[in-house]
Amino acid sequence: RINSDRLWDSLMEMAKIGPGIAGGNNRQTVTDEDGEGRHLFKRWCDAAGLEMGVDEMGTMFARREGTDPSLPPVYVGSHLDTQPTGGKYDGVLGVLGGLEIVRSLNDLDIKTKHPIVVTNWTNEEGARFAPAMMASGVFAGVLDQADVYEHTDKNGKKFGEELERIGWKGTEKVGDRKIHAFFELHIEQGPILEDEDIDIGVVTHGQGLKWLQVTLAGKEAHTGSTPMPKRRNAGLGMARVIELVHEIAMDYQPDAVGAVGHMEVYPNSRNIIAGRTVFTIDIRSPEKEVLDAMDGRIREGIDTICDALDIQYKIEQVGAFDPVTFDKGCVKAIRDAAERLGYTHRNIVSGAGHDACWINRVAPTAMVMCPCVDGLSHNEAEEITKEWAAAGADVLFHAVVETAVI
Amino acid sequence: RINSDRLWDSLMEMAKIGPGIAGGNNRQTVTDEDGEGRHLFKRWCDAAGLEMGVDEMGTMFARREGTDPSLPPVYVGSHLDTQPTGGKYDGVLGVLGGLEIVRSLNDLDIKTKHPIVVTNWTNEEGARFAPAMMASGVFAGVLDQADVYEHTDKNGKKFGEELERIGWKGTEKVGDRKIHAFFELHIEQGPILEDEDIDIGVVTHGQGLKWLQVTLAGKEAHTGSTPMPKRRNAGLGMARVIELVHEIAMDYQPDAVGAVGHMEVYPNSRNIIAGRTVFTIDIRSPEKEVLDAMDGRIREGIDTICDALDIQYKIEQVGAFDPVTFDKGCVKAIRDAAERLGYTHRNIVSGAGHDACWINRVAPTAMVMCPCVDGLSHNEAEEITKEWAAAGADVLFHAVVETAVI
Ligand SMILES: NC(=O)NCCC(=O)O
Ligand SMILES: NC(=O)NCCC(=O)O
Repeated sequence: RINSDRLWDSLMEMAKIGPGIAGGNNRQTVTDEDGEGRHLFKRWCDAAGLEMGVDEMGTMFARREGTDPSLPPVYVGSHLDTQPTGGKYDGVLGVLGGLEIVRSLNDLDIKTKHPIVVTNWTNEEGARFAPAMMASGVFAGVLDQADVYEHTDKNGKKFGEELERIGWKGTEKVGDRKIHAFFELHIEQGPILEDEDIDIGVVTHGQGLKWLQVTLAGKEAHTGSTPMPKRRNAGLGMARVIELVHEIAMDYQPDAVGAVGHMEVYPNSRNIIAGRTVFTIDIRSPEKEVLDAMDGRIREGIDTICDALDIQYKIEQVGAFDPVTFDKGCVKAIRDAAERLGYTHRNIVSGAGHDACWINRVAPTAMVMCPCVDGLSHNEAEEITKEWAAAGADVLFHAVVETAVI
Repeated sequence: RINSDRLWDSLMEMAKIGPGIAGGNNRQTVTDEDGEGRHLFKRWCDAAGLEMGVDEMGTMFARREGTDPSLPPVYVGSHLDTQPTGGKYDGVLGVLGGLEIVRSLNDLDIKTKHPIVVTNWTNEEGARFAPAMMASGVFAGVLDQADVYEHTDKNGKKFGEELERIGWKGTEKVGDRKIHAFFELHIEQGPILEDEDIDIGVVTHGQGLKWLQVTLAGKEAHTGSTPMPKRRNAGLGMARVIELVHEIAMDYQPDAVGAVGHMEVYPNSRNIIAGRTVFTIDIRSPEKEVLDAMDGRIREGIDTICDALDIQYKIEQVGAFDPVTFDKGCVKAIRDAAERLGYTHRNIVSGAGHDACWINRVAPTAMVMCPCVDGLSHNEAEEITKEWAAAGADVLFHAVVETAVI
């Protein structure tokens, strides 16, 4: 078993970097706070005798040598970046859970045949720069590095330049590493495990996602003196699309979800009818056909809405991944570990996207989930118990060590 | 008749200060640009031999002495501040039209019995700081000076501190002046005069307005892993209220209008269900009963919407004025002037709010309107012709001089 106090202390230590305003974290990708978090993680890795590699996407790879260094390593990790109103565990538990594994192996003086590499993937959240799971997507060959370097945040700053600015643009070519297997521990971010009082989620599948960024162009005009029939209201158009997305998601739920969390309004003045709005639709389903059907209905609906309001629209897909089926062998390793350790467990479909979803395309991959209070995540109030974290890390430990072979 | 070339040149000169990005202006109240515009206006007033007074709200009063200085002055003016995407004429025409009157009186060496005071009211637009017509509202005793000093912009800056910072917080007590009459020239900001090819709008009434700032509090949560029935989506709530406001306005139009132009979303991330939204409803009608009925239906509707979505709400009235009936004598002075000068004219109800609406409560007041292209305002593309401006200023000239008595 891993050392649950040490794991918890490390979680609490990392949470001091980029504190939020309500007990959580704001440590968005390639900010100064992200840089500081990376330095702390590196110091811990150095102390554990790991060798750090950093690739051109800034992803960190901390290697514990195997007894046969020629064998491809077993990778374990997640991400240290957070949402603007993020929790202390989303991503962080998976990285520090990986670190705890090698710390425990060191304590117990256990050597594995395969090397073990603890990983911190850059920009998993996609909050500051779309899309989510950016570095793992480039690693898996589904996103283009030169392209994502140019992606901008709300202030027009480029991802590539910000990565360089914080000093974490490495020299290693992205995706060159051979991966024997990849394991990721993550909080569930949904309510199932807590509701059913189950210790461990064995993640068999992941939902697919589409992010559609919509721009509506109407006409700025005075809210008081412009007759109702003369208006070309891009704000009203946005409101109708938000309702449309909700209705479509309700039609397909529980096999789908949908919402709009990102909205910008121009010029955003109380007495100006909005001339332009920009917002991102987030739709998800474990069934590709459902996702495609939703996408189709949304595009049709936007066309109808904009026609009625005499406004123009543009739809750009700024993020997408197909539903994922994780590797049977890796999933079994996790289920066996939970079983062996005496934890209650059930199969689960990940509602969120994870780096594991991309890495699954290039190497055998699976995920462990532990419950979180109220299923609440992407909220500073995100909470887990030390016991839940310990159970998840224990299962991760056993699955990784079994795969890396003693 | 006034000198239309000089008036137009002054309009174009002022438009160079705080240029927008599309040919209009961004010279929002108590910004550096506003300060610069005030300095230019003061230089022009100095050159015309006027004496400048500035009150504690920053309103500028440029006085041309009368032959009987003991008589209360005739006031004429409007505002120099603009929307973030404002036009070159909204407000500015009224201030520089007032200046053109005294310039023309100087040219013609005409003396009036009553002094004439050209006025630039602070923060008419209400874009940066709610409410609109702030300084004239304090002058008329309907707004509290200490209270509005504390009003903040989106960056948390206070109105009073910003007024002081730009150096235009005067020492004169607000509202102490005696006003014989007030006249305001303004572009229509609606399509009626242009559509009917009429030179002059004789403004008999003004619409009433309510600004309701709504805060919705839901719960930030993950867009992917939070089941649809568990969501408390403040973004969806906002969308429904926007649609509600539109529907209610459509029920009462053409006797009412309604829209939401200002919206803020927290934390505004693609994969977070909005936990909080703040937005301002703008409803207007020339009938107080209609305005009150709309207000009631909106409050009821918000309650129903929030109940269904399990979100909390707060409604704050951040701006309001009742429908206005302008002074019969002043209205007649304007109609007579238009008639005498041979301009086509019609009675008109102002769709927008104006400083004249507040001053009408403390002194006989009326307004002249000239057409604007497409009725478009609060848009950088706002446009008028030199001839329209000249006709409006001519009528203003005659009404003011007749009231100030030669
Ligand atoms: N796990 C997680 O929250 N990832 C961010 C990408 C997503 O929105 O699913
Ligand atoms: N005239 C004008 O646009 N005033 C601003 C206040 C309002 O929104 O009516």
